[in-house]
Amino acid sequence: MSIEHLHPVPHLVTALNGPLQQLERHFLARQSDIEAWFRQQWQQTPAPFYASVDLRNAGFKLAPVDTNLFPAGFNNLSQELLPLCIQAVQSALERHCPEARQILLIPENHTRNQYYLESLATLQDIIQKAGFLVRIGSLAEELREPQNFSLPSGRQLLLEPLRRKNDRLYVREFSPCLVLLNNDLSAGRPAILEGLQQMLLPPLALGWSNRLKSDHFSLYQEVTQVFAGLIDIDPWLITPLFLRCGEINFMKRAGEECLASNIDSLLQSIQRKYDEYGLDQKPFVVVKADAGTYGMGVMTVHSAAEIQSLNRKQRSRMATSKGGLETSQVLLQEGVYTFETWGDNQAVTDPVVYMIDHFIVGGFYRVHTRRGANENLNAPGMHFEPLAFAQPCTTPEHHMAPDAHPNRFYAYGVIGRLALLAAARELLANDR
Amino acid sequence: MSIEHLHPVPHLVTALNGPLQQLERHFLARQSDIEAWFRQQWQQTPAPFYASVDLRNAGFKLAPVDTNLFPAGFNNLSQELLPLCIQAVQSALERHCPEARQILLIPENHTRNQYYLESLATLQDIIQKAGFLVRIGSLAEELREPQNFSLPSGRQLLLEPLRRKNDRLYVREFSPCLVLLNNDLSAGRPAILEGLQQMLLPPLALGWSNRLKSDHFSLYQEVTQVFAGLIDIDPWLITPLFLRCGEINFMKRAGEECLASNIDSLLQSIQRKYDEYGLDQKPFVVVKADAGTYGMGVMTVHSAAEIQSLNRKQRSRMATSKGGLETSQVLLQEGVYTFETWGDNQAVTDPVVYMIDHFIVGGFYRVHTRRGANENLNAPGMHFEPLAFAQPCTTPEHHMAPDAHPNRFYAYGVIGRLALLAAARELLANDR
Repeated sequence: MSIEHLHPVPHLVTALNGPLQQLERHFLARQSDIEAWFRQQWQQTPAPFYASVDLRNAGFKLAPVDTNLFPAGFNNLSQELLPLCIQAVQSALERHCPEARQILLIPENHTRNQYYLESLATLQDIIQKAGFLVRIGSLAEELREPQNFSLPSGRQLLLEPLRRKNDRLYVREFSPCLVLLNNDLSAGRPAILEGLQQMLLPPLALGWSNRLKSDHFSLYQEVTQVFAGLIDIDPWLITPLFLRCGEINFMKRAGEECLASNIDSLLQSIQRKYDEYGLDQKPFVVVKADAGTYGMGVMTVHSAAEIQSLNRKQRSRMATSKGGLETSQVLLQEGVYTFETWGDNQAVTDPVVYMIDHFIVGGFYRVHTRRGANENLNAPGMHFEPLAFAQPCTTPEHHMAPDAHPNRFYAYGVIGRLALLAAARELLANDR
Repeated sequence: MSIEHLHPVPHLVTALNGPLQQLERHFLARQSDIEAWFRQQWQQTPAPFYASVDLRNAGFKLAPVDTNLFPAGFNNLSQELLPLCIQAVQSALERHCPEARQILLIPENHTRNQYYLESLATLQDIIQKAGFLVRIGSLAEELREPQNFSLPSGRQLLLEPLRRKNDRLYVREFSPCLVLLNNDLSAGRPAILEGLQQMLLPPLALGWSNRLKSDHFSLYQEVTQVFAGLIDIDPWLITPLFLRCGEINFMKRAGEECLASNIDSLLQSIQRKYDEYGLDQKPFVVVKADAGTYGMGVMTVHSAAEIQSLNRKQRSRMATSKGGLETSQVLLQEGVYTFETWGDNQAVTDPVVYMIDHFIVGGFYRVHTRRGANENLNAPGMHFEPLAFAQPCTTPEHHMAPDAHPNRFYAYGVIGRLALLAAARELLANDR
């Protein structure tokens, strides 16, 4: 990491942070109501096993833009906050599978991505410290023998080939009652994981092969409608507007009219809200594959015309996302500016919050030096510097200013949990 | 605090730490079995709301000597570990009383003890950060109006007089469904707390007016018998031997023969174990009131003769304990040497571990510069320097030496939880 960690909280560079301080002030004033409401929600709709939520902080608005139910990046969390992860894993597994002693962890197939392997090693370490034996069973076809990886951190990571006998998964003779997925199934639901006798967490239905971002954000909208009523704020301050378009083929230019008219309509809706709050920023829209992750197939547009003038290369980039899924449904999401910057070069930063069960366990900032405030920070080929949250998100300080660091982190934790609640509702809908 | 916190883990000064490293080695090697066993135990016998356990680390032996179910000293925990407390309170209250939004906290009556008030302020802060409104209702008769205390830490603490209307407790109009006791009831069960409609945690039956140390250590012995079998160690390595004597009156010298013969018998049992392990320390016995706390009525003896030659002042000290209870039953407990020392002056230190629900949330060392290794560190008029654990007790590191700090802290956490399990069995016995 090249960035010095001396002042580990980015500076929020905006004169327009009035409404956000309003938001933080509301969160503080209504903290016990908010927490009581969350407790009630988790009783009704239990949280998924884990999640990370990408936030954007525009000063005047704080909202999630992506919710990952198979999070990586555990290696980016502060070492000091790992005990929170350990304790949360203990709580989660007591609830899901109290008799479990051993866990089979199924990772992504990126065996050449050192960052991912570091995250995997941290996740394994957390679950082992929580008191479970953990072995890693890989779906990667090229892995035919157990393979030991030496990581940059100095740790060793053993990946073993996953195999199935009848309706149980194994690595060698190891076949525990609980299988934990850390693979988002962008490439589809592998047959080897279907119809298992073992408990699989999170369930296959939460993989990207089933899940649509637009479903998530519809549920998020329902969640924030109620929550905003509870604490008496405009839900738009915490909710990105969106529209969706079906049956888009970027290469064949099919569905382009729908795309163009929906972009226009969405830009107008954003402009109306900006006018209402007297904001002179230029509205923008982020175009994403409705299924998929890793920021592939993501584009920022300021007008419908931009979508019609894409060149072949840009179309091709939008046409496929991670794992080769062809983009056919598209999410048009209100672009939320990032006004948090870091360091002398004013690098743009986005917070990512992590949850295990319904507990906020930490987070980090993605710090990017070469991007503007309205660009996606999780784009292909993107390199970010992780900047671990120096403090937990659970220690609001009523005697400090609403935008003091512990209170800003608390606000992140509230918004992260609202997105988690939307995911919990996806989970419940899939259980039915 | 006058002690520098540069090397926050005491040095274990003993050449006799072989068996303890054996113990730590066993704990590490069998960690997933140990944790699975604890999970099963908490399912069968849920943990009390909170506890602190005083440990003694003799190098060759690591054992609890006191278990407090209404802990103070929260202000001595490391600030960095408070998020663990917050998360554990959330877990605990979701289990006990998921609908609770507000909590009435009933403290000890020592309104002049700044240390206690600091602990109370920290406890209130933890529960508030966990998402509850907390007000403090005092039993102290001298408190007739709400009184605000300015604490050395700069914090403010508001104590309000507790009142009862029908079968509910109030401070002013505030009467939440959950009442949390932080008063160990040494002075008996106050009528105002009997037969409440509100949930009272922990229940009155766990107060010192009902509880006997000897019952606790009997249950502890049962727990360690099974646990030692599980990981294949001699239970004595983690269990203090003890005997009890009933109907003792120190002033009237009643019951002295029982005391003398039991002390002799216990010293002989200890000597046999010392011989078995080739230890040349001199056995000693700690004489304590069987009901009571705060180290009053505690005495260290190396022979039965010492008990017969007590002077009047010593007898008077043994005759009453905190809250004025007359000592009538006595616990004779194997004295466990303290071989952990701190700093250039080799100050003797004892670890105290803290648990909320069944989660280890931290601890501190009592550092005492003017006492020997075989003296009680929690004695009347005693002043200790608290030295917060720098690390949590939940991060055992298999690649480090068995006595490396994270592994020593893990061992403390294991023993602390064994004592907690004994307390959970007391709780269950009282529920029946």
